[in-house]
Amino acid sequence: MVSTKFIKMLDEKYGVKFHDARLLEEAFTHSSYVNENPKKTLGDYEKLEFLGDAVLEFTVSDYLYRHYRHLNEGELTRLRSNIVRTEGFSKMALDCGFKPEINLGVGEEKAGGRERKALLEDVFEAFNGALFLDQGIEAVESFLKQTVYPVIDSGFFTPSRDFKTDLQEYLQQNGSVDIEYKVINESQSPSSFRVEVSVNGQVLASGEGHNKKKAEQQAAQHALERLTEGGK
Amino acid sequence: MVSTKFIKMLDEKYGVKFHDARLLEEAFTHSSYVNENPKKTLGDYEKLEFLGDAVLEFTVSDYLYRHYRHLNEGELTRLRSNIVRTEGFSKMALDCGFKPEINLGVGEEKAGGRERKALLEDVFEAFNGALFLDQGIEAVESFLKQTVYPVIDSGFFTPSRDFKTDLQEYLQQNGSVDIEYKVINESQSPSSFRVEVSVNGQVLASGEGHNKKKAEQQAAQHALERLTEGGK
Repeated sequence: MVSTKFIKMLDEKYGVKFHDARLLEEAFTHSSYVNENPKKTLGDYEKLEFLGDAVLEFTVSDYLYRHYRHLNEGELTRLRSNIVRTEGFSKMALDCGFKPEINLGVGEEKAGGRERKALLEDVFEAFNGALFLDQGIEAVESFLKQTVYPVIDSGFFTPSRDFKTDLQEYLQQNGSVDIEYKVINESQSPSSFRVEVSVNGQVLASGEGHNKKKAEQQAAQHALERLTEGGK
Repeated sequence: MVSTKFIKMLDEKYGVKFHDARLLEEAFTHSSYVNENPKKTLGDYEKLEFLGDAVLEFTVSDYLYRHYRHLNEGELTRLRSNIVRTEGFSKMALDCGFKPEINLGVGEEKAGGRERKALLEDVFEAFNGALFLDQGIEAVESFLKQTVYPVIDSGFFTPSRDFKTDLQEYLQQNGSVDIEYKVINESQSPSSFRVEVSVNGQVLASGEGHNKKKAEQQAAQHALERLTEGGK
């Protein structure tokens, strides 16, 4: 069951105090725990997760719409999906100290369920669903102002620039060109790649990386730098 | 531009009266119209659609959570995705008389844009995004109470029952059984299929349909009827 220490922390750190303690408990209860403890009349978090998922999508969208007015719809959508995906919310669950509080069945615990990012994300969503039911959307917003929104503003979720696309757009301003990426030393070291980028058959720049994708990105970045410096 | 007749209808039929008329106008303005009318300082609906999409996901989820308590999380999720998908909201846009009010560019109009379901869905989302910005979430809920929620309650969005899954669950209550579906007259008519369902090698029932999937569903339905009648 959720610890008194955790309940105290929620109140002191985030000003969150549940009226209905069962809602909080349900948000932290995995179905494997319910299955192993049929006598406890406790539900699992799945329906709260269904609701919390939508609550978070809405509050995050509202925040982005109001605070990131310089972004267009495509950029907003990409940023939103970076935030609401598994990586993002599982990080938030860890940051908020949710991990040790989850009620897991013995089998799920042994199978490493507590470490699964998808499960941590579920619990973060369920918690926000429970908070919404208990105290309304303003309480969720107040919690997110202290947790998720600062992480958004830190740039943590901002998609990294795609240099390959940028290079393509730059080069094709005046019509189609032939851009080719070629790995030039794959055999030398399996953990380091060197890639050359050619435009209409002429090598423009090269890049290195731990994998082919990263090496291509660096090659495109170097090409862009060379092209835009040359234009000055 | 949105007609005065439409503005009057929104007020009289749904009690919706925008404080900021520009928000309403923006919700009905496609990018093709903005491109052709650069002198009008009007934005297109895309950012309102980004917001409205999340507003609708949230309000619909909240409604389902509170009013469909007998459904489990999987059923709630399926029902929600039936509602928020293109078919659902484009129908709502038509029902609410949105179609003639959309500001479209000449090219988009000629290309049949006004008939595109995806565009109608976009406008329905954008309208709800605009209404939320203008008057808050309660105003959106009040509008949906008169439009979307009754359609949900009519069963319009309820997924049709999956008889194959139901049959499997029924038969495997006491352990694993071997269920087989077999097309028995595919060659006779390409537009009608007859399928037999066998359990542990014994034919239980058959079904017909325009395609194999439908014939299998009917076979499973007939099998379920036979099994549950027999059990009475």
